[in-house]
Amino acid sequence: MSNRNTPDPSTPKSGSPPPAAEETKSDSPAPEKPDAANKDDPPKESSPPATEQAEDPGEESNSDEGPKEMTLDMSCFRKPGEKTFTQRSRLYVANISPDITEEEFIQLFAKYGKTEEVFINRERGFGLLRLETRILAEIAKAELDGTLVNNRPIRVRLASHGATLKVRNLLPVVTNELLEQAFSQFGPVERTIVITDDRGRPTGKGIIEFANKVAARKALERCTEGALLLTNTPCPVIVEPSEQFDEEDGLSEKILPKTPRYYKEREQQPRFAQPGTFEFEYASRWRALEEMEKHQKEQVDKNIREAKEKLEQELEAAKHEHQLMLMRQDLMRRQEELRRLEELRNQELQRRKQIEMRWVQL
Amino acid sequence: MSNRNTPDPSTPKSGSPPPAAEETKSDSPAPEKPDAANKDDPPKESSPPATEQAEDPGEESNSDEGPKEMTLDMSCFRKPGEKTFTQRSRLYVANISPDITEEEFIQLFAKYGKTEEVFINRERGFGLLRLETRILAEIAKAELDGTLVNNRPIRVRLASHGATLKVRNLLPVVTNELLEQAFSQFGPVERTIVITDDRGRPTGKGIIEFANKVAARKALERCTEGALLLTNTPCPVIVEPSEQFDEEDGLSEKILPKTPRYYKEREQQPRFAQPGTFEFEYASRWRALEEMEKHQKEQVDKNIREAKEKLEQELEAAKHEHQLMLMRQDLMRRQEELRRLEELRNQELQRRKQIEMRWVQL
Repeated sequence: MSNRNTPDPSTPKSGSPPPAAEETKSDSPAPEKPDAANKDDPPKESSPPATEQAEDPGEESNSDEGPKEMTLDMSCFRKPGEKTFTQRSRLYVANISPDITEEEFIQLFAKYGKTEEVFINRERGFGLLRLETRILAEIAKAELDGTLVNNRPIRVRLASHGATLKVRNLLPVVTNELLEQAFSQFGPVERTIVITDDRGRPTGKGIIEFANKVAARKALERCTEGALLLTNTPCPVIVEPSEQFDEEDGLSEKILPKTPRYYKEREQQPRFAQPGTFEFEYASRWRALEEMEKHQKEQVDKNIREAKEKLEQELEAAKHEHQLMLMRQDLMRRQEELRRLEELRNQELQRRKQIEMRWVQL
Repeated sequence: MSNRNTPDPSTPKSGSPPPAAEETKSDSPAPEKPDAANKDDPPKESSPPATEQAEDPGEESNSDEGPKEMTLDMSCFRKPGEKTFTQRSRLYVANISPDITEEEFIQLFAKYGKTEEVFINRERGFGLLRLETRILAEIAKAELDGTLVNNRPIRVRLASHGATLKVRNLLPVVTNELLEQAFSQFGPVERTIVITDDRGRPTGKGIIEFANKVAARKALERCTEGALLLTNTPCPVIVEPSEQFDEEDGLSEKILPKTPRYYKEREQQPRFAQPGTFEFEYASRWRALEEMEKHQKEQVDKNIREAKEKLEQELEAAKHEHQLMLMRQDLMRRQEELRRLEELRNQELQRRKQIEMRWVQL
């Protein structure tokens, strides 16, 4: 593994000064802009203004050399309740040599713990396998991606999840656990997440990762035909197929095919369009379209939001109406009861009278 | 670290049978639906149909016990060109005891290499620090989150990035590297990514992570006032502020505050609304609104897409028009040249005549 970086000799040395060092200085005006300052907050709580860090250089950095290697207790890599050997911890390994044996392939990952569902396609030079947890898969990717195996730099990626659904329209009281409870009825669930913002506030959106496609299809179909309700308020969860995106490695020059169009488009360097030029005019028209799109979508959102608020009010009104009806029925029952008691009393009075009369006759 | 799981005794043991085992069986019908089968493909290449895995039990799993700990060469944790000690490798540590010293705090992370920008807020019981790379921060989170420090389970999270922008409207030839080149003019860039789909195809969207907020604000302002062009085609990159979301830990029962509304909403269990009921009617109306929203947004997308295609055609036409004009100008230049040559020839003829006449006179 020592030749980790040989494929790319341009890799900077670890000792290089961190760009982050520039931040504290250039960031100092931030506190003047509260909106921007807020964005710097850590999740779920607010953080110190940048200046606090700047004022205390003593806390800036701990510059002694770090260790060259580390030993990890693998039993720590399991979140409470985390499922193991899921599709989330599945690795896709490309550019493996056709003559690699399954043993050699598995051996590559031996140090990361047990492997499952190992698959090798030698013709197309790739393999798949699962490790116990996601973090183990991420560590294996970080260590092995680009290393030479049989003199080929292998490419290691986290494979995309094949049975994921997106959910929307979740009330703020819905949690990961409630989602799992609700969706387990369709089949084995690997992971359910209520997406939160950088302050830990729920966004109303969520992710359901099933163990297989059959369960995912079933959930999608049943929740599209029927209305799955998670809480008291009858607002149904909206379930949609989920696309997978890569925001980790992205598109690098190395892997982009160099087509004629590539060379044509890349003739010019990045630049700002100069007013009065041919391209400035067209750029402006592009932007006008983008603006229009943004505006129109905001309009749709506004309309739908208002319609939903109206619907919620109607729901509230209907609930009150319902309660009123119950109260009326209750009142009628009581009146009926009263009438019956009156009846009995009269009968009792009658009987007394008759008894008294008999006494008089004696 | 051995008491890692004490806060949650319910943690299952690592030896438990992986739910993934169920997949291959229940997934076998998948190949009947090619669309669904495709979704199982690994990124950037297609993968074997699920049945291939099922047919060969020999390749199913490597069941020998994995190691209990692993030793990692920390020099491997650096992607080629990856910046170090960025906001992406910044950890937020909550629920630390007020009497923790900075040395104790730093010591917690010593095994993960050097730390920078260490900050502790003892009143509010949290700290911040940066590790060298993202994967080191993720490992530290996985190992330390929930461990007892001074008898308190600390919460370790990846802090949200304070200086991120979203970009849209990228042509397919735009790469991570081109984004970095284009946005470095506004200040130090930590990371630039062109988001790709699960086949590695660019989505036209990207992420720019600056080292500080000043640079991010500058980029946002300049690209909103002017039109930044990355390639030949004058289609400007659209830059927007980026919200940070947590899809990793999500919203768990443990951290959700139990308000009266929580108890009211959670009275009922998840269920499908029954036709003819009060809630079924309202659920249906909710869904109708969702449908309407979806439909209207698709309509907006369609209109904008058509407008953009029209604009591109006009751009092409204008390019041709421009070329025609150049050709006309060229033709005129040539005609002018020709006329000039005629002129010279006539003058030459004149002179000859005069010379001949002089000879005749002698």
